Amino acid sequence: MGASRKSAAQPRKTARSFAFKPEMQLAKLARSCYERGWLLGTSGNFSSVVSRDPFRLAITSTGLDKGALTADQFVRVDASGLAVHGAGKPSGETAVHLAVARVRQAGAVLHTHSVWSTILSELTAKEGGLSMQGYEMLKGLKGVNSHQHREWLPILENDQDIPTLAHEVERVLNEHSRAHGFLLRKHGLYTWGENFSEAKRHLEILEFLMEVLGRTAVPHPATLARD
Amino acid sequence: MGASRKSAAQPRKTARSFAFKPEMQLAKLARSCYERGWLLGTSGNFSSVVSRDPFRLAITSTGLDKGALTADQFVRVDASGLAVHGAGKPSGETAVHLAVARVRQAGAVLHTHSVWSTILSELTAKEGGLSMQGYEMLKGLKGVNSHQHREWLPILENDQDIPTLAHEVERVLNEHSRAHGFLLRKHGLYTWGENFSEAKRHLEILEFLMEVLGRTAVPHPATLARD
Amino acid sequence: MGASRKSAAQPRKTARSFAFKPEMQLAKLARSCYERGWLLGTSGNFSSVVSRDPFRLAITSTGLDKGALTADQFVRVDASGLAVHGAGKPSGETAVHLAVARVRQAGAVLHTHSVWSTILSELTAKEGGLSMQGYEMLKGLKGVNSHQHREWLPILENDQDIPTLAHEVERVLNEHSRAHGFLLRKHGLYTWGENFSEAKRHLEILEFLMEVLGRTAVPHPATLARD
Amino acid sequence: MGASRKSAAQPRKTARSFAFKPEMQLAKLARSCYERGWLLGTSGNFSSVVSRDPFRLAITSTGLDKGALTADQFVRVDASGLAVHGAGKPSGETAVHLAVARVRQAGAVLHTHSVWSTILSELTAKEGGLSMQGYEMLKGLKGVNSHQHREWLPILENDQDIPTLAHEVERVLNEHSRAHGFLLRKHGLYTWGENFSEAKRHLEILEFLMEVLGRTAVPHPATLARD
Repeated sequence: MGASRKSAAQPRKTARSFAFKPEMQLAKLARSCYERGWLLGTSGNFSSVVSRDPFRLAITSTGLDKGALTADQFVRVDASGLAVHGAGKPSGETAVHLAVARVRQAGAVLHTHSVWSTILSELTAKEGGLSMQGYEMLKGLKGVNSHQHREWLPILENDQDIPTLAHEVERVLNEHSRAHGFLLRKHGLYTWGENFSEAKRHLEILEFLMEVLGRTAVPHPATLARD
Repeated sequence: MGASRKSAAQPRKTARSFAFKPEMQLAKLARSCYERGWLLGTSGNFSSVVSRDPFRLAITSTGLDKGALTADQFVRVDASGLAVHGAGKPSGETAVHLAVARVRQAGAVLHTHSVWSTILSELTAKEGGLSMQGYEMLKGLKGVNSHQHREWLPILENDQDIPTLAHEVERVLNEHSRAHGFLLRKHGLYTWGENFSEAKRHLEILEFLMEVLGRTAVPHPATLARD
Repeated sequence: MGASRKSAAQPRKTARSFAFKPEMQLAKLARSCYERGWLLGTSGNFSSVVSRDPFRLAITSTGLDKGALTADQFVRVDASGLAVHGAGKPSGETAVHLAVARVRQAGAVLHTHSVWSTILSELTAKEGGLSMQGYEMLKGLKGVNSHQHREWLPILENDQDIPTLAHEVERVLNEHSRAHGFLLRKHGLYTWGENFSEAKRHLEILEFLMEVLGRTAVPHPATLARD
Repeated sequence: MGASRKSAAQPRKTARSFAFKPEMQLAKLARSCYERGWLLGTSGNFSSVVSRDPFRLAITSTGLDKGALTADQFVRVDASGLAVHGAGKPSGETAVHLAVARVRQAGAVLHTHSVWSTILSELTAKEGGLSMQGYEMLKGLKGVNSHQHREWLPILENDQDIPTLAHEVERVLNEHSRAHGFLLRKHGLYTWGENFSEAKRHLEILEFLMEVLGRTAVPHPATLARD
């Protein structure tokens, strides 16, 4: 904990870098998601709960190029979102990450801006969410044992007032207690997991299924408009 | 055979690592397929017959991130699916791999979850399969000498009861004795080959042709629904 | 400034290479954009203002493979477009870059040829521009604080007479003083920023949003034609 | 010329490897095209004229994985297609490469199997070719000075009788003396250039424009069928 953040960014595996393993995992995943086009234009933010007592969340600093993200570009905040380690400014959506970490007891929270999540969050906004059912891929979601599972991703209106948004996120997470993620309208996906690996798996599964739905099941708006 | 699995994972080419060449080839291919989006979210599994007498199949352990798969994350099982080498738990779909290896005398079996195979396995499910004809690319399939060949990929209902599914796979492989692969509905593709290279070639050809068909020949469901 | 251009191309960080940092940044970004398919076939050109007094713009030489672009393949020109450093011939569209740098006081100007910008620049040409509104991603554009922002990308007719085109660009930039980019019809996107990072961010945001619009909001021409 | 082919495959730049520079360039490009999905399943073949007197063409051996292609996996053939250097069997389509090299005086010939060329070669087969007009990207084709250029890519019926196909290719190249490429129906693209760089540029331009046309201008067959 007393390790300087500079040394954590170095690739050498030392006792100090080990302490920043959560940031290193998130940074590597962010660079890979950037390559897939899920984190372009400094969009998105990733976080990881590094301790529960005292509560510490490592989260990306605001406004960074995710294609070159490094472990020392994360800030550690407390339960109120106040930065306690690191020089950058915590992501503007820190309160949303904190809400997810609290309500879901998540160990890692991932927020991406992909083309398909942006599209689907608008096309199915009227229904209030996105339904995914019958796919084998769903079995990778925690607690799901059959492809017959129906996953419902709630869609929330986007809001620039982050405390309000975080409050609404908390309400929706409680209402849809089995959801593995949610969409912000014309904005992107939030998902999480008990730990980093589970969150990464959930991210890939939900993005995959949104691409499947986006390419086929959701009617093309031009087609709809003609009915 | 007496080599410890740990050493096999090291990149150095030694007598020991040579014994694990099948796993190394499959792991490298898996990482590459992950990049293409065909093995996201720990989905899919690859296997290779490493000996026929006694019968030994190397297969991916269950629940692994294919983007970071290494040779030591495979388990070797016998003809009944029992693990005889390696610490992980064999893939849940081991029985399907064994059925393919037995009925087709396959040397390698590849199972992927791509966006297009997921889409097509649903859109053409009513016809019981997917037809591909007239493409030069078909000539890369074993025993095919002309683009005029018609390849029929049977589609099977997905099932969480793996012994039942493996039995059905065996039946379908016997019924469609010339098929180079099959689809599980809303699940993905299985293909194989006499050896690793042939299986890899079949995988790329079938995924390519499914993308071609998915982008054009198969009517968009929204369009269909309006007729 | 007296540094030979040869040494600048070397990866070592020396006082000399530091002087060519703008070219190194642009070259790295170009190689990455080439991988995404935004700069195929030697298309596109990137530039950076390296000094204001005297005015010097580093710009890609004409006709180069952007997949292998290096820092020594840039030319430095003065305010009139005359080459003052470097052996290659400045990009044919240098006058457009100069117009953007002058009117917008841009520190970097990026011009790409992506599939989606080519498509949208034609499909919405009659309206004279492309509208983007309601997307969270818009907040990454300079001076934009809410997703409710409406971005208007003007579309200009393509022209092989570059002085005429540059003049038209200047007129359009003055008319649409808040635009963060513009499209040339069936040609591609121009965007810019106060510095390299801002220009890169704007590029990724506009390309992302064009893909979103291209995949959904813009009616398919075949569909339109039937109404 | 007396260099052993083994040594040519080594990355070291020696007098010997220099002699195999054409193969090294083609192999590198092939690996990159494989990543883009243009050469999956051992499809496609590349060639380069290494001398005119005596005539020698370096061409990919048949049946190779292009994702791992190396310089020593090329064969050198004479004007009649007979192998004079190298151990592999020349590509089955060598006669087509020879026809292009002869009729167009090409220095390099590239044949890819992309998703979009496969789709468009079928959708516009009735018209006998594919028209591309008004795109800035066209200016990268040799001898084209304006985006107003109309490029016509003839489409030939696919044929397993290669001498017949080569003859037909020769006839079409003479008839369409300004074409920079042609399509084989449900098979793929052939393009070429005076040298390697020009051929690579033509390949990227034609593939790019086919993706643009495939995504918009060509009506979706399901839509057409309903008229």
